[in-house]
Amino acid sequence: MADTTATDEPATDALPACQARTGDALAARYRHVRARSLALAAPLSPEDAMVQSMADASPAKWHLAHTTWFFELFVLGRDPDYRPYRPDWHYLFNSYYQSAGPMHARPARGLLSRPSLAEVLAYREAVDDAIDEAFARDALDPVARQVLLLGTHHEQQHQELLLTDIKHALWCNPLRPAYRDDLATAAASSSSPSAWIGFDEAVVEIGAPAWPRATEFAYDNESPPHRVLVPAHALASRPVNNAEYRAFIDAGGYREPALWMSEGWARVQAEGWTAPLYWDEDGERAFTLGGMRVIDPHAPVCHLSYFEADAFARWAGARLPTEAEWEQAARPLAVIGHFADDDRLQPCAPAATGRGLAQMFGDVWEWTASAYGAYPGFRTLPGSLAEYNGKFMCGQWVLRGGSCASPRDHLRASYRNFFYPPDRWQFSGLRLARDEQ
Amino acid sequence: MADTTATDEPATDALPACQARTGDALAARYRHVRARSLALAAPLSPEDAMVQSMADASPAKWHLAHTTWFFELFVLGRDPDYRPYRPDWHYLFNSYYQSAGPMHARPARGLLSRPSLAEVLAYREAVDDAIDEAFARDALDPVARQVLLLGTHHEQQHQELLLTDIKHALWCNPLRPAYRDDLATAAASSSSPSAWIGFDEAVVEIGAPAWPRATEFAYDNESPPHRVLVPAHALASRPVNNAEYRAFIDAGGYREPALWMSEGWARVQAEGWTAPLYWDEDGERAFTLGGMRVIDPHAPVCHLSYFEADAFARWAGARLPTEAEWEQAARPLAVIGHFADDDRLQPCAPAATGRGLAQMFGDVWEWTASAYGAYPGFRTLPGSLAEYNGKFMCGQWVLRGGSCASPRDHLRASYRNFFYPPDRWQFSGLRLARDEQ
Amino acid sequence: MADTTATDEPATDALPACQARTGDALAARYRHVRARSLALAAPLSPEDAMVQSMADASPAKWHLAHTTWFFELFVLGRDPDYRPYRPDWHYLFNSYYQSAGPMHARPARGLLSRPSLAEVLAYREAVDDAIDEAFARDALDPVARQVLLLGTHHEQQHQELLLTDIKHALWCNPLRPAYRDDLATAAASSSSPSAWIGFDEAVVEIGAPAWPRATEFAYDNESPPHRVLVPAHALASRPVNNAEYRAFIDAGGYREPALWMSEGWARVQAEGWTAPLYWDEDGERAFTLGGMRVIDPHAPVCHLSYFEADAFARWAGARLPTEAEWEQAARPLAVIGHFADDDRLQPCAPAATGRGLAQMFGDVWEWTASAYGAYPGFRTLPGSLAEYNGKFMCGQWVLRGGSCASPRDHLRASYRNFFYPPDRWQFSGLRLARDEQ
Amino acid sequence: MADTTATDEPATDALPACQARTGDALAARYRHVRARSLALAAPLSPEDAMVQSMADASPAKWHLAHTTWFFELFVLGRDPDYRPYRPDWHYLFNSYYQSAGPMHARPARGLLSRPSLAEVLAYREAVDDAIDEAFARDALDPVARQVLLLGTHHEQQHQELLLTDIKHALWCNPLRPAYRDDLATAAASSSSPSAWIGFDEAVVEIGAPAWPRATEFAYDNESPPHRVLVPAHALASRPVNNAEYRAFIDAGGYREPALWMSEGWARVQAEGWTAPLYWDEDGERAFTLGGMRVIDPHAPVCHLSYFEADAFARWAGARLPTEAEWEQAARPLAVIGHFADDDRLQPCAPAATGRGLAQMFGDVWEWTASAYGAYPGFRTLPGSLAEYNGKFMCGQWVLRGGSCASPRDHLRASYRNFFYPPDRWQFSGLRLARDEQ
Repeated sequence: MADTTATDEPATDALPACQARTGDALAARYRHVRARSLALAAPLSPEDAMVQSMADASPAKWHLAHTTWFFELFVLGRDPDYRPYRPDWHYLFNSYYQSAGPMHARPARGLLSRPSLAEVLAYREAVDDAIDEAFARDALDPVARQVLLLGTHHEQQHQELLLTDIKHALWCNPLRPAYRDDLATAAASSSSPSAWIGFDEAVVEIGAPAWPRATEFAYDNESPPHRVLVPAHALASRPVNNAEYRAFIDAGGYREPALWMSEGWARVQAEGWTAPLYWDEDGERAFTLGGMRVIDPHAPVCHLSYFEADAFARWAGARLPTEAEWEQAARPLAVIGHFADDDRLQPCAPAATGRGLAQMFGDVWEWTASAYGAYPGFRTLPGSLAEYNGKFMCGQWVLRGGSCASPRDHLRASYRNFFYPPDRWQFSGLRLARDEQ
Repeated sequence: MADTTATDEPATDALPACQARTGDALAARYRHVRARSLALAAPLSPEDAMVQSMADASPAKWHLAHTTWFFELFVLGRDPDYRPYRPDWHYLFNSYYQSAGPMHARPARGLLSRPSLAEVLAYREAVDDAIDEAFARDALDPVARQVLLLGTHHEQQHQELLLTDIKHALWCNPLRPAYRDDLATAAASSSSPSAWIGFDEAVVEIGAPAWPRATEFAYDNESPPHRVLVPAHALASRPVNNAEYRAFIDAGGYREPALWMSEGWARVQAEGWTAPLYWDEDGERAFTLGGMRVIDPHAPVCHLSYFEADAFARWAGARLPTEAEWEQAARPLAVIGHFADDDRLQPCAPAATGRGLAQMFGDVWEWTASAYGAYPGFRTLPGSLAEYNGKFMCGQWVLRGGSCASPRDHLRASYRNFFYPPDRWQFSGLRLARDEQ
Repeated sequence: MADTTATDEPATDALPACQARTGDALAARYRHVRARSLALAAPLSPEDAMVQSMADASPAKWHLAHTTWFFELFVLGRDPDYRPYRPDWHYLFNSYYQSAGPMHARPARGLLSRPSLAEVLAYREAVDDAIDEAFARDALDPVARQVLLLGTHHEQQHQELLLTDIKHALWCNPLRPAYRDDLATAAASSSSPSAWIGFDEAVVEIGAPAWPRATEFAYDNESPPHRVLVPAHALASRPVNNAEYRAFIDAGGYREPALWMSEGWARVQAEGWTAPLYWDEDGERAFTLGGMRVIDPHAPVCHLSYFEADAFARWAGARLPTEAEWEQAARPLAVIGHFADDDRLQPCAPAATGRGLAQMFGDVWEWTASAYGAYPGFRTLPGSLAEYNGKFMCGQWVLRGGSCASPRDHLRASYRNFFYPPDRWQFSGLRLARDEQ
Repeated sequence: MADTTATDEPATDALPACQARTGDALAARYRHVRARSLALAAPLSPEDAMVQSMADASPAKWHLAHTTWFFELFVLGRDPDYRPYRPDWHYLFNSYYQSAGPMHARPARGLLSRPSLAEVLAYREAVDDAIDEAFARDALDPVARQVLLLGTHHEQQHQELLLTDIKHALWCNPLRPAYRDDLATAAASSSSPSAWIGFDEAVVEIGAPAWPRATEFAYDNESPPHRVLVPAHALASRPVNNAEYRAFIDAGGYREPALWMSEGWARVQAEGWTAPLYWDEDGERAFTLGGMRVIDPHAPVCHLSYFEADAFARWAGARLPTEAEWEQAARPLAVIGHFADDDRLQPCAPAATGRGLAQMFGDVWEWTASAYGAYPGFRTLPGSLAEYNGKFMCGQWVLRGGSCASPRDHLRASYRNFFYPPDRWQFSGLRLARDEQ
């Protein structure tokens, strides 16, 4: 189980042992995840928690409230006698569930000074108390327990978004303030050259058994397991790093249209891209959640759009891996790497490694060559939750592996993240692939 | 002391006569105005103070900081030894003074979670202390004293904007929260029919002597005094009220293109206008700084664009007054009416009046038929302050008389306010005029 | 009468004498104006006649059809038995008369490949025949004759727009093709320095008696005559010329925000303005209706926005004249100058002049300091024609005097043209004014 | 000869077998294709040929010129002594080849009144003469011959676009004029119910051998051939027809968000979609290249976006086929159906069929469930032609099979067309697929 895995290794916000003993791992996971959100929001002032720097991002306060609304509506709300905490907040904190009723305009989330952060935290507490009490009186039926588990994964997704959104918001402030001043600075680092790891042509099975029929949690979009013919190819042993990406810049990569998708080149021109998001003008320092920091040449390059990842790969005489190639390679590996749990919140150079694939999990989400779509035989979850993933299967690309801002126990080899090709505010990088004869 | 007054007594904030006689009426005015801003901001949470609901509006926090920056740059900064409080804030709080250097993008003011409201309040205190100290050591030369006086009028303008901007911001919140819950509700009201007050053709002098050569303060755009030939005409004895405006709505005013300027009609169509801003759908209640309130039929209609004021006048077989007509009529009158000082912050029905012009000052800004432009012989203030008014003399229309959100001692008969024809978020209404033979 | 004036001096499209003798000057004027439109369209291919290069402009074919529709609807259509030429064209060629029914979207006029130019020319012929026949049987009542006269002035306005619109359209073509290859090139020119002509303070009457009660034609917006107090001032003896404007450019006029209205500066930045419209990059040549031509330093500068005219005047220590100042000065002058009738279609250097005001009429429309608004006592024309001028009295500025693209017999001292401050595609320039003590 | 055929006979433009055996089938194909473009443009006036109704579409004149430019630049231009016909047209008619230099802005193609249609036709003739002459002196090296063959396929693509673009352009005209008045009306039609044709799981090879190494022409994006594991599934025996689609409309398909991709639903709301493009309000008639025509319930539904095709499939309890599924099914089939060669230019009901798949080719392009991307091992063509297909592999979806506006000899089972999900102006419909156990 995911939360068991989480206790294998120490982490700053590991689950207190006493709770794990109470017999209900789900309750423990719930408390753990909910506490983690609070910890992430703790460095933020009420004003920080309200900033929405672009339509794609949301205020931290909204993340805190929306994840709570999810539990309130879909878990507590299953009880016909449940009385909503504040019925008029439903409209504010519904994200995109058309079947749950109308919703506030997404780009206007940053205008909500009320409810205040304090009121949202009180809302969290009230819902947590109600959930706790439901656990205590064993009032959660199997479906409620499933949705509650889904809700913890949902909240973990929002934890990562909270970090990427606040990073963007603070970067929009000309003062460039830090989210936290106490984040560890990377030690002097190094990295070995990237090596090619070859794979023969094979029919492989990817995807996860459909939860909740299967016991292991996975999102609907990871199912069903299915066989794919994967051609002969090779994967780079580690993600592309900042030094390698700088060589691309120095070689004129941002000035050569032949390297780019047509839409990508239009974007480069329209927005004046000359480097990854957050790099300063001379390419020496970049904005991090700890403020402006010197760029580590050995750390994975980060905050790339799909267009940049794709152009770099073309320049390097390679390509991006497909998601099947990525998943085949990741399946046998443990979920080891740099995650949000490590409290650095910035990709790091690989630890001295032996042979084989490094940094498949954590550090940076890896753009793949795969457009986000339905697996053969895909079925959405029932009811409102059908809207969770399926309706976004158009125009986005799959990223794999998680990042330095992902909770470790949220990840797995079959996990499919997805963003639009111009998006750069996620911790997104790339790993090279190439065809083999 | 003025600021003591501001906290001791709710009603009048007029400057006690004794102070004007004592050592420094300017210092008293400064303290009074500065304290009033704090009082206006007091009901706001840090989050409320950060909302920017549209590019035309600014967050309350920004108003508090910008007005302070004005004193710091233009008064304290005259001393070459002055060390700025936070040099990197200059960029944030410069509004539009190109000659003072580059500035933050206006529509992005709402993204500034830092500095916090608390930091901005500390900034105010530091600048106030420095000004106080300058007064104490008599370190302000005549020019500094002039700019400081200008700064107090500047801050009073922002006090009104703070109120209109926060009203719009809170209205954008689907919860429709009140700015203050303790605002007085209007008593049962009545109003007598509007009468026409006639004026013969005359050459009249309007405008104010150019300050600071003249001792009475006036903005540069009110000068120089000059003669204007005003044709025979009549003015309505009071502003148009809500009942009269509702008759216009009921008569199909918003559906008849012949009543509207071409641009106005386009706006009606594009934005679906069917009533003044802030009215609810059935025309029974309107959003106020005290929340949703029943519309008083006898109170002046408010939150109209120029287009609506003009269309109403055409429907009524009348027209808007020119600013010369308005000023000629207002000159002999005392500045009496409902102002921000009255702490109601909503236009009120006229007190039982005798004959003559009522409600010329206060309640609602009155749209005029005059495009905002330079008077003959107009000269801007010197230096950066040349940008104060002159560069906006294009595309806007003059409004006269002040509103329920204006400080009374900020107004005078020659005062020219100006906004764009579609603007509706100010406390803006109209008084009718007509040609006479 | 206007058409008599037109025969004072020879012009390429002068009215044949035989027609003037037939006894109906109105019929002669009608034929003259209608023939002139055809002559202006003659150099255009069907494809040229269809281009619409921006929403503000219209295709030449549309001008030809719309002016015809005006006569058909408002003159022929007065007869209840009249059967429209093509009822489904009404929707296409109604410009902005809401009271005449719905209309095609203005920015989509360039998409109308049908009706073809040939069909539109046949439409013109049919309507002309019907009008001729109505003249022949004396079937036009007084109102019809009035509207017909208005229609000829309306068509003359469109003749100028046809020229300015096709100029813009051809300039948008990277090949920069000429409208006509046979336009005369200006001879070597010279101009004397501009002198100041002083005017004392005075109450002057401006405006034209309201037509059709008055016999002389004037648009409704020129009426009624009314007295204005004009302060002491001086006017420049001639418009600003290209050499003078180049000095402004060379002095950094386009880089100094202090010279500009706030909106003007925003426009300079957004559109990268560094010279008048149609100038090439090195300021040596400009696009004309005859193709790219060397800029004559002595010719009036042309294709300026209000913002540029205003900024130049400020840089020169002067200002723009008000429309009352302009009209007072123009009233005693004959309508002499360079007009469309001269078939050069480009402003020319002044002829060697004596003292006094030169080039008040023709060459370039002169931006004034006056926002376009209603005169005191203004009344629109009755019926649909109320929409002709009145509904545009918002946001535009008055220009006076006509241009090298105006028909001479269309102009008079009281004529008020109006455009938006950023508009540059008209033949628009400026004359300086200044305050006098 | 092909071009003789094209003018002598209206119907089939298949290449006579005798020619393929003679000296130069390529020359014959060139003449045939070039003549076909002229025939398609013949019904258009110079004005029709200039309309550009949206940025995605191009004027017919531009299609005629651009396809000629392609031959001039890439075939004739290989000869270093070749002197371009009009060097300044290169900028106008380069579509998107960054490596060939800068180009005119795509949305401004409709502003080019010059060169005229007549000049473009002369340009075509001159280039055709030069190509003929090169054939005659056997001056085309193997690479030139390859590019010339590519150019004929390129021109055939533009032939279809010419039809879809002019259809959209004429529909934008409120008069709704026909492209041709002589198109055959469909006879009374019928269609049998759709049946499911099952396919077992299999590893299949799709794709075409890489041309020009392979002798059969195919675009680079169809290569290399590669194996794909296709799951068990079934395909509908024919495309969805208008009657079936009307049932979806009647069942509220356009009002039920659960059926739509999130982006699709946003588009439905923003654009007010309630039916396929070109349907009139009551769903009885639709705009065709022959004008408004009654909708044939048995003909394939057409002018759907991907969003609509996908929503219909979801409503029907099915899905769209993947391109591998489609190609596997199409491979054994002859290219039989309703094509542009049939001169009806509107999808038709299926001929009375036996069992098996009907209408796989022609009538309507079939949206697939496959995002447009690179096949494993994909290589672009060398040089500028690398830009032909590869740089568009982002954000678009694959359509298969060709339409009633495609030339038959342009199609094949491996052919991949691609458009953006909201695009509706192509002849695009759908065929259902479903998973099998």
